Amino acid sequence: MAPDDGPDAPPVQRWAVQLEYDGRAFVGWQRQSNGLSVQGVLEEAASRLAGGARVDSITAGRTDAGVHALGQVVHLDFPADARLQPHQVRDGLNFHTKPHAVVVLQAAPVAPSWNARFSARSRSYLYRILNRPARPGLSAGQVWHVKHALDADAMHEAARHLLGRHDFTSFRASACQANSPLRTLDQLDVTRVGDCVEIRAHARSFLHHQVRNMVGTLHLVGCGRWEPGRVATALAACNRAAAGPTAPPDGLYLTHVGYDEDPFA
Amino acid sequence: MAPDDGPDAPPVQRWAVQLEYDGRAFVGWQRQSNGLSVQGVLEEAASRLAGGARVDSITAGRTDAGVHALGQVVHLDFPADARLQPHQVRDGLNFHTKPHAVVVLQAAPVAPSWNARFSARSRSYLYRILNRPARPGLSAGQVWHVKHALDADAMHEAARHLLGRHDFTSFRASACQANSPLRTLDQLDVTRVGDCVEIRAHARSFLHHQVRNMVGTLHLVGCGRWEPGRVATALAACNRAAAGPTAPPDGLYLTHVGYDEDPFA
Repeated sequence: MAPDDGPDAPPVQRWAVQLEYDGRAFVGWQRQSNGLSVQGVLEEAASRLAGGARVDSITAGRTDAGVHALGQVVHLDFPADARLQPHQVRDGLNFHTKPHAVVVLQAAPVAPSWNARFSARSRSYLYRILNRPARPGLSAGQVWHVKHALDADAMHEAARHLLGRHDFTSFRASACQANSPLRTLDQLDVTRVGDCVEIRAHARSFLHHQVRNMVGTLHLVGCGRWEPGRVATALAACNRAAAGPTAPPDGLYLTHVGYDEDPFA
Repeated sequence: MAPDDGPDAPPVQRWAVQLEYDGRAFVGWQRQSNGLSVQGVLEEAASRLAGGARVDSITAGRTDAGVHALGQVVHLDFPADARLQPHQVRDGLNFHTKPHAVVVLQAAPVAPSWNARFSARSRSYLYRILNRPARPGLSAGQVWHVKHALDADAMHEAARHLLGRHDFTSFRASACQANSPLRTLDQLDVTRVGDCVEIRAHARSFLHHQVRNMVGTLHLVGCGRWEPGRVATALAACNRAAAGPTAPPDGLYLTHVGYDEDPFA
């Protein structure tokens, strides 16, 4: 128990939960005054499951408005006397998040020292571009629609320049709150699957808008406006203006958060 | 030109178009008084593209309310003096179908004797079941959500009994208007892909609700209430009451219509 909880704070049971959500419906992960947030929906559901007690959440990744999740991870501190089973936490939260597009895929009790954000060892993202003349009929808001033909091989080649440990200032939002622009990018693969171009990114952590800024830059390569090597120049410039624009949130999915020990295993 | 068009009917250019649509938004393919239909949206768009002339459509498959399409095929007769190029038909229709979830993937001029319905040699459907405890977060209305674990292998085994030429009365909607209940089922494969169970069906043609009734019956096998062999008994009974319930439209997609000569090739 943290010291500032005071001597009378009740004991808590910490739960890790894995979430899927549709970012179209939300102002983003974080509570805001201007609309519905994923955090707000989840904490409200948790409070109801806990019989009215306030339940705070900590997330592995604060996704922006319009960004989706297939495997977001969050921890919640429930009153210890609630004595819940994993399926009760999952199903109870899912009952109370209705009718919103936030669902709990898995829930597991974890130690009080386990932290969804600080214990995380990696984040994985998928970015989906629908690359065809016709707009999406079945996935509006869930892909970036690019009409002109993209060269996925050139995009993949360009992405090689971003792998490894670099100062990613050129790909960092001005509002980014991270102390350092240094990050180690482990994976940035671009593949074509029919009329979709899929970009998969994996790192210990990312800067704010880093994936969307990398995708927006690779898009310039894909449509032939940039040679693949210009991405290396943009990276070396350490200047946001040297890289491409920010890709829209619609195509971005937080797919997985890695931990030394998988709490859901 | 058909005789009942009269001697003064203007010449037409017939176009084949391939469609994707999200069935959630529509009362089904066919025009109805109680809401928006795919046919209504498409014909209205075609009329605008044709400068106000009425343009009728004939479809390869009249999908029900809530059923989706990834590759529906339709033909439209435009006034011949419109002199449109394929990309103009595609993009023009897509402009005029906005903001509805109906998009034209491809368009091609065809001979006046070519008919989207009667020239079709096969229809392919995909049925998607989301098989997990948590409801869909990202695909609500686009899958059938089944909470209890399904045995996809048992479902696939049961599906073997339906392959070939049979009287499919047991799997036919009472409202079905087909002259004969005889159909030849070429493919009915059940596979598990993660937490999805996918069923792929292929035949020259299907009876009304046939795919959904087959899926609803295979579901009974998948959850262990039926032995796989009971599907053969249900088929032989030639009685709708002998088979399982109709699966919801949400999971059904018309994926492809086959022709002797692919008009879009």
